[in-house]
Parts: sequence; structure tokens; C-alpha cells
Amino acid sequence: MKYAVGIDVGGTSVKLGLVNTGGQIMEAWEIPTRTEDGGKNILPDIADSVRNKIEETNLADDIVGAGIGLPGPVDDEGVIRKAVNLHWERTFNVEEELSGLLGGMRVKAGNDANVAALGEYWQGAGKDYGDMVMVTLGTGIGGGIIHHGRIYAGTTGAGGEIGHICLNPDEKIRCNCGNAGCFEQYASATGIVRLTREELEASSEGSELRNTEVTAKALWDAVRNGDKLAIRVAERFGYYLGWGLSIIAGVVNPEVFVLGGGVSKAGGIILPYIRKNFDAHTFHACRDAQIVIATLGNSAGTLGAAKMVID
Amino acid sequence: MKYAVGIDVGGTSVKLGLVNTGGQIMEAWEIPTRTEDGGKNILPDIADSVRNKIEETNLADDIVGAGIGLPGPVDDEGVIRKAVNLHWERTFNVEEELSGLLGGMRVKAGNDANVAALGEYWQGAGKDYGDMVMVTLGTGIGGGIIHHGRIYAGTTGAGGEIGHICLNPDEKIRCNCGNAGCFEQYASATGIVRLTREELEASSEGSELRNTEVTAKALWDAVRNGDKLAIRVAERFGYYLGWGLSIIAGVVNPEVFVLGGGVSKAGGIILPYIRKNFDAHTFHACRDAQIVIATLGNSAGTLGAAKMVID
Repeated sequence: MKYAVGIDVGGTSVKLGLVNTGGQIMEAWEIPTRTEDGGKNILPDIADSVRNKIEETNLADDIVGAGIGLPGPVDDEGVIRKAVNLHWERTFNVEEELSGLLGGMRVKAGNDANVAALGEYWQGAGKDYGDMVMVTLGTGIGGGIIHHGRIYAGTTGAGGEIGHICLNPDEKIRCNCGNAGCFEQYASATGIVRLTREELEASSEGSELRNTEVTAKALWDAVRNGDKLAIRVAERFGYYLGWGLSIIAGVVNPEVFVLGGGVSKAGGIILPYIRKNFDAHTFHACRDAQIVIATLGNSAGTLGAAKMVID
Repeated sequence: MKYAVGIDVGGTSVKLGLVNTGGQIMEAWEIPTRTEDGGKNILPDIADSVRNKIEETNLADDIVGAGIGLPGPVDDEGVIRKAVNLHWERTFNVEEELSGLLGGMRVKAGNDANVAALGEYWQGAGKDYGDMVMVTLGTGIGGGIIHHGRIYAGTTGAGGEIGHICLNPDEKIRCNCGNAGCFEQYASATGIVRLTREELEASSEGSELRNTEVTAKALWDAVRNGDKLAIRVAERFGYYLGWGLSIIAGVVNPEVFVLGGGVSKAGGIILPYIRKNFDAHTFHACRDAQIVIATLGNSAGTLGAAKMVID
């Protein structure tokens, strides 16, 4: 059996895994992400940790390479332009740099959302499908397109960065990206909180959401309890998410959408609200796309990273 | 020198070409599209014509294959699901059927808009770029995505069928596709006529468009003459087209958009109206995409079809 190293770099910790070519994580561990000094220690720390693990496990001859997912746009050549969360300001080739630190090991780099998409495609909810779009519903909306089994990185590594497609050019409130009317202003966890607050302020109708901190989780719990105001928020969320997915379907015509991230933890209860609006707005030739919930959680990143060097 | 046959099938005629591997059309000819009897003669007519031309030119040993563009969704395997304009109602593998009629010749089939995109990528306005999206602004809006030099067909052959992405879920007027609020309801030649009529009806302001048949051409002629009402229509057209392209950029992050079809014949005058809105709504990482006018006209289809069998 051969093995690949999967590396998933976040702003506070780096998740690492030794993954066999059959898709099992044989060992998983974490190291802190040292973002001080412009993040200059991050890649050397990772290389040290990988070398130690390989020595410890005596697997040097069986390692096919290392894949690394990073919080920033990474193009097909392995060039990252900027990674704010890592305090990286320069544009450089991550693959070459990490490979150098690992004695010439084969290294592939990708954007973290794209890499997680590849993980779900390989071993998770996308396993039984062809072309796939992963949509990560967290604080914002991330995404990744898998086409013919590979990450669709796009020209500047921003392929599948669907959180900032504009659904409403006339929106007055700005998105963090500087534009206004972005998809993630409506259909992310943050969007759910905003839509909930709007509904709460629009009436004095009773709702269990009045006595609790407004979060995406609280909203879906209330929907599950039949709370009418919560259901109205769910309808509005479904309107935006279903519409947004319908647009993506019209561009890349996937076989499946896999929904991940915090909002997806509510489970299947979110799907009918999305599906109804998706069906209403999607071009008939693209309408058969399935919409399912991600299954891998945090390990999607490690698995997808490893998969990049497993052919 | 080797040659490929490029075949571009339309509802009234089939354009054929002998194309060398350097991208030159050595011979071009046409035959009628016989749509009677469920279009059963179309492929046999094409095969007869191709065989005759190969015999006549004595090139049998130098032909690498034939590519065919068709007005309907064609998937990566060469399966077409339906082609209303050809009166084809069945789902079948065009590549296998035409190859059989051509004595086992290598055949690749694609959707006509995707094939034209490949032609522009190979020999036209997309020549100097990487990933490309072609947008055909005619009666409707067609499109094609070129990724890593190949057609992105999508799961059911509807990849890049961007004319039916929904820009306005609340639109009351139906699109031909059965949905409402489709991109092509606003930013096609038909959309321009509609926006112009709306402006003409909204006031009694003088305009040269009052004394003429309202067409996309008349609109851009009037814009060129400084007609104020026409310029307002151009602004609205640019709003929708720029917004629509910004969404597509956010999904597939191309290096260039190539605009073809009847509306593009007005030339560079249309670009500033589009660019301004594109820049306002596109995520910063995707904003560097170029927007240019197609250069090949009708030969894009023949060239792109041939390119499918030239590696």
C-alpha cells in the first residue's frame, strides 16, 4: 500500500494526515499555525512535522507525495497570491517551496475549499457522482468545482469562489469583499442571522427565537419545532440558496451539489427549502442535479489534499 | 499536413470544411439540412458529402477525423438528448452513428455554441488566452466554456448554457424555456428590442429610434449618433450583461470573455457599457478577466468542430 500526506492549513492550526491510496486516514495529527513574522514559519513547521512522522512510521519508501490545502486562491501551477489568515502577503509557488523543504517530494497545492470539495468527491457525499460543486455554508460561502475528477482552479485560483457572485446589484449593505449583494450576504450562516433579525424586527409575533441568541443552529432548531417565524426565515434562506445554486447549475451543469459547512449540520431539514427554489429557477437541462449534505466534516480537507497526489 | 473535417449543423443548412491542423479552412461548402421525416436524412447526407469531398480531393490517408457541432445538448460521450431544430426527438450517440456512416472514421460531437467557443479559442479572439467563456448574443444567449483547451460539456451537455441563468426570480414575463427572469430576456438582441420599446413607451422624448424598425443594430447606430434615449437603453443592456458576466466570472474565473453573435457585430462600442457593470459586481480575484469581441464569425463553428479531432 502507498500513502500520501494530506495537509489542511487553517488560520489557527494545521491538520495533517497519512492517507492510504484507498482513502483511509491511517494517522491524523495537528500542529499550531504560527502566523507571526508574516507566517514565515508555517511551511517549515509543516515540513518538520511531515518528516518526523515519516521517520517515525518508517514509510519513507511508500509515500507518493504531499497535498496541501490553503486559505487563499491557488492556481493550477501551485501559485498562491495572498492568504490573509496566514499573514502571507507575497505571491509565490507553494508547491516548489514545500517540495524543497521536503527534499524534493512531489507536492500539489490547492485552495482549501477546492481541496475539501475533492475530499467529498473522493470519499464523501460526492462519491457516486460525476461533476460536482461543493458549497460550504459557514460564516461566508465557499465553494469548489470538481470536473472530470479534478479541481477546477480557474485562471487566478478563484474558480468556484461562489460566495461573491452578485444576486442583487441594488443591495445597499456592503459585503466584506467590498462589493454589495453577494450570495454570502443572504445564504450563509451570517445571512441566516441577518434574515432572522429582519423577521424578528418586522413584527412582534411570538417566536422561540426571541428568547435565545440568534444563530443558524437556533433557527433550524426552531424550524424543527414548527416555529412559524423561523419557517418564514427558512423560506427566505431557501429562496436565496436555491436561486444561487440554480445559477451555478446553469453555468457548469453538475451532477450533484454537496452542501457542507456549519449550516449543513442542521441536516436534511434544510433541503426542501432549497430544492423548491432550485427547481423553479433552473434551466430544464440542468435541473436533475442532486442536492445532498456533506458527510466528511473536518476530514474532507485532509483527504482531498492527499487525493491531489494520488492518481 | 493532416486534415480534419469540420461540420456545423444548423436548422436550414450544414456548413462543412476541410481544415488543416494549422487551423486554415482549405475548402468550405454547404448542404441543405433535410429536417423532414424526423431529420433521419441529416447524418447520411453529411456522410455522403464528406465521403465525396475526400474522394474528390484524394485526401483519404490524411484525414484525422471529423468533428460535428449540433444545435442541442451533447455530453462528453457524444450523446445528444434532443435537437428541436433538426426534428430529432430521440437520445442517441451521434459520434457512433456518424462514425459508422463514415466507415469507422474518428468522430467527435459537441453542442454548436461550445464548438464555436472552441473555434474562437483556437483561431479567433480567444487565441492568446487560457480559460475562456464565449457568450453568443443573438436571438437568445448561448455560451461555451473552454477549460484547459477543451470544451466543458457538463453532465447533460448543458455546460455553458448561460442564457437561462436567472437574474430576476420575480420577473413576470416568461422566457421561451418556461422559466422567468432568464439572462437572455434582458441581454440578447431580443432583450435589447424589449428594453428599447420600454424606453420609447416611457416618455415622448425625441429619438431616431422612433422612425425606424427597432433592432439591436438600430440601437447601436443610434448610440453611435449620440441619441440620448438609445444611450439609456445601452446603459440598461450593459447593466444586465455586465452583471451576468460578473456572475459567470465568479463561478469559473476565466481569463477572457469572447462576445459573439449578432449583437457583437456592433463592435467595440458595446464594451464600455458592459465593462463598467462587470467591474462593479465581480469579485476582485476574478475581475481581471478581459472582455473582447469574437473575430471568426460563421467560420468559428467549422474550425471548432475540426479542432475537436485535432489534438
